[in-house]
Amino acid sequence: MDIEKVNSMDFGEFVDVFGNVIEKCPLIAAAVWSQRPFSDLEDLENHFFAFIDALPRSGQEGILRCHPDLAGRDLQRGTLTAESQREQSQAGLTSLDADDRQRLQRLNAQYRQRFGFPFVLAARLSDRAAVPRELARRLHCQPESELRTALGEVKKIGHLRLADLLGADPAGVESPRG
Amino acid sequence: MDIEKVNSMDFGEFVDVFGNVIEKCPLIAAAVWSQRPFSDLEDLENHFFAFIDALPRSGQEGILRCHPDLAGRDLQRGTLTAESQREQSQAGLTSLDADDRQRLQRLNAQYRQRFGFPFVLAARLSDRAAVPRELARRLHCQPESELRTALGEVKKIGHLRLADLLGADPAGVESPRG
Repeated sequence: MDIEKVNSMDFGEFVDVFGNVIEKCPLIAAAVWSQRPFSDLEDLENHFFAFIDALPRSGQEGILRCHPDLAGRDLQRGTLTAESQREQSQAGLTSLDADDRQRLQRLNAQYRQRFGFPFVLAARLSDRAAVPRELARRLHCQPESELRTALGEVKKIGHLRLADLLGADPAGVESPRG
Repeated sequence: MDIEKVNSMDFGEFVDVFGNVIEKCPLIAAAVWSQRPFSDLEDLENHFFAFIDALPRSGQEGILRCHPDLAGRDLQRGTLTAESQREQSQAGLTSLDADDRQRLQRLNAQYRQRFGFPFVLAARLSDRAAVPRELARRLHCQPESELRTALGEVKKIGHLRLADLLGADPAGVESPRG
């Protein structure tokens, strides 16, 4: 899909295609459509990130709260979005043994309790050994910096999902703009 | 459900219960959770409305674009949210004959083309005769005032959904605050 195709979409098509670039936040794709035409993938992506950055803090926390726990309830129940299912599967989180799963669930609960939002990580850039390690590390960060870190992960996830949709090489994913 | 019960919810429960108060915008409920505790239904509702009012114009248009057409594609395909299905059914829009349905679809298409968002109306406060009449009328409004009118309908819908969830009498729905 090239950028001319993206620019030709009506808002219904655009939200169908890009509605889950930010997990369970079709509102953001639907808002970004107002900014068309887009010059390229980077321009499109920057509009998603600018919308996130301009939200009040409660809205930014709200975005995080729309994300599922890693290896959590939605994975067990089969209620993950297709994108999240694929990402958690690629990180090996769908085949944890019971001990590892329970350890992660305990850490997730502690994190939610401390910060008031779930632990968000671009799972495709991680793996089943690194996820609990990173979660245990971030559990001790300060709330202000942790909010920024978590939103950075939302952007990495969004960058990878957009690159998938446009068939682009997701270069530079370690340091997305914004 | 009383307000103490609402105030005792963790964010996961809160988003499960209130995530569709604003159609397909769980982000807004998830943001509103940051403002707890709530003193009563009106206070809770005012936080939803304040979040909408504080969004940039693109975000307000985005909220509207998350709504389905009345008697449109999602109704035909059975892909409406439970709330929207009930509301369109109560207005008699699920049992239109082919002529009436096609007339409404033509008007919906003209409206989307003119304003860049779908026609939004609190269907429970209307009926199958009034919907096309109101749509034909609003089609000729100015874009700025039509955006305000449409957001007012989003608030009426949200007010009724919240009143349902809290088992309250939806008094004063003709002029919700905000």
